[in-house]
Amino acid sequence: MTYERDIVRHMAGYVPGEQPTDSGIIKLNTNENPWPPSPRVIDALATVSAESLRRYPSPSAAAFLAEAATLHGVDTDQLVATNGGDELLRLAITTFVPPGRPIGIAEPSYSLYPILAAIHDSPVHRVALDDDWSLPAGFPDELNAAGVPLTLLVNPHAPSGRLLNAAAIARLADALEGVLLVDEAYVDFADPDHDVVSLIAHHDNLMILRTLSKGYSLAGLRLGYGIGPASLIQPIAAKTRDSYSVDAVADQLGAAALADPGTARASWASVRRERQRLTDTLRGWGFGVPDSQANFCLAQVPTDAHRSAASIYAGLKHDGILVRHFDTPRLQDQLRISVGTPAQNDALLESLQRQLER
Amino acid sequence: MTYERDIVRHMAGYVPGEQPTDSGIIKLNTNENPWPPSPRVIDALATVSAESLRRYPSPSAAAFLAEAATLHGVDTDQLVATNGGDELLRLAITTFVPPGRPIGIAEPSYSLYPILAAIHDSPVHRVALDDDWSLPAGFPDELNAAGVPLTLLVNPHAPSGRLLNAAAIARLADALEGVLLVDEAYVDFADPDHDVVSLIAHHDNLMILRTLSKGYSLAGLRLGYGIGPASLIQPIAAKTRDSYSVDAVADQLGAAALADPGTARASWASVRRERQRLTDTLRGWGFGVPDSQANFCLAQVPTDAHRSAASIYAGLKHDGILVRHFDTPRLQDQLRISVGTPAQNDALLESLQRQLER
Repeated sequence: MTYERDIVRHMAGYVPGEQPTDSGIIKLNTNENPWPPSPRVIDALATVSAESLRRYPSPSAAAFLAEAATLHGVDTDQLVATNGGDELLRLAITTFVPPGRPIGIAEPSYSLYPILAAIHDSPVHRVALDDDWSLPAGFPDELNAAGVPLTLLVNPHAPSGRLLNAAAIARLADALEGVLLVDEAYVDFADPDHDVVSLIAHHDNLMILRTLSKGYSLAGLRLGYGIGPASLIQPIAAKTRDSYSVDAVADQLGAAALADPGTARASWASVRRERQRLTDTLRGWGFGVPDSQANFCLAQVPTDAHRSAASIYAGLKHDGILVRHFDTPRLQDQLRISVGTPAQNDALLESLQRQLER
Repeated sequence: MTYERDIVRHMAGYVPGEQPTDSGIIKLNTNENPWPPSPRVIDALATVSAESLRRYPSPSAAAFLAEAATLHGVDTDQLVATNGGDELLRLAITTFVPPGRPIGIAEPSYSLYPILAAIHDSPVHRVALDDDWSLPAGFPDELNAAGVPLTLLVNPHAPSGRLLNAAAIARLADALEGVLLVDEAYVDFADPDHDVVSLIAHHDNLMILRTLSKGYSLAGLRLGYGIGPASLIQPIAAKTRDSYSVDAVADQLGAAALADPGTARASWASVRRERQRLTDTLRGWGFGVPDSQANFCLAQVPTDAHRSAASIYAGLKHDGILVRHFDTPRLQDQLRISVGTPAQNDALLESLQRQLER
């Protein structure tokens, strides 16, 4: 006898990128920041007390929220801390989408979105991105016509790294009848003058997802947050979120990370420089590489290489280098490569060069 | 304009017990273990590396699951780690209950259950407990007739502490047509020979919730887990759970806690001794106190005290002692008192005695 819901029985789960335990592997497959977190985070770890582990944590993650409010110049009631950005994605669906109503996404996009929708009994209205991974002009009208109460949009886009500027986000929020959640998981690596947070004062349907996983080198800690008008944030913070979903350690270490923006900013600058070097080199070898504002590049294998992306993926893995290959129609000739340290990127390029005899 | 679902707009959120920041308060209101966690947990904290924070954690919390498998004598595919026990409650609903179908509970019970059901668009079929907080004989038949795919049963019961023995749980699992999730959040404080885990080999609809929050003094860490047949556990572990819902710190510290059962067991023995002392003393003063197998006592204020439970709660708070008062029809003349250290319990009893002139 099976007890799970039919929809659960028939769905596939999310497949995380490989997480090898061998520390000798060069891991460019899951978009971690290649640089370590702030030394202040490690200092904060040493001050975590037995007493703070024994007691329930702050339900709101108050220490972290106070730092995030300072960083972004918003009030704490415009912020909600979550167990990684993934929890906020789920909570946006839970809070704004009646089960059975559709969510809107661009395709391709983060593969978790349709899985979260399926669990919620919600269909997914998918709008195909144009060939250059830009949003088609009719995107909001199509989603409005479908009656979508929530649109999930990753920006910078994954897996291409393409950035929609703030003015375009503002127009999209104006045009959409439902909530627009802009998933800014990778925004720390974008141009420093890119700013969507200031838009929340003028758009009551706009919410932003942030995470410390990438920009602050804390993927292991599971800490994300939402920024938005209090009218969108408070139903999540006070009602739909699991009580105490952020633990005491994440509260304290996350606060320490945001209080030292210098370390993180230095890592972002390095990633931008290396992203440009990877992009230029790969383009020089005939790869198609869109301009990326994230910490990864999407590289389309040149047809004259006479090698499939899958076989190059396997060749890199043989050399101890993990990248990501998505076996879907629009991505099967592409590799998504996280930007590493200069030395890691050297190793990647050397292995690629050897394989392609470039 | 409001964007949240009607059901979210009209519901009340879960209200956690007060979490004072003043460390001088005697906190007997949220059922934390009064004793600190194992020194090995603090040692493990010191070994958390910057690298383990930078990278995504083990998706399954592999280090913790290995220790839990050893502790319980089960396979790791019969275990799922969650972000506190609360996440497992939500996931059981998500996995086994189609939105709109009812969940079954006994009343009164953990106040989070109906909130999780409401978020899922599921009604709650409530069966009132008998006057002595025991399950009425018709409990499973009533839930079967209501077509309940999932029953949530906290055992030892909260807020009374009453324990249903393993034979009764086995009969209940046999009788119920849906899944039975036994929420054993407090079971570490029960008689050591109480064992429900061994039943999972013989009941394909039985799942058990455990948490490190109480028994292992790690409420701040947010780590719970489920034990059950792989056919119930795997749809949760592989499909409905957020990817990486347990962070790297919880994985390592949780493993360290389970690897040192001695510290935790000593705290459980202390709680049992003090629970008996509290029970005996309060009964001697005329309070009604059911036999508790948890780390709290439910104390019914004697009518000849001429004091309401609410006013005694306030008087204790004035003396710097927090307990829990639930303002519901069946509980309004009762106080739920977490069992503290001997010194904390002395202070509680002195304050009570002064107020009641006992």
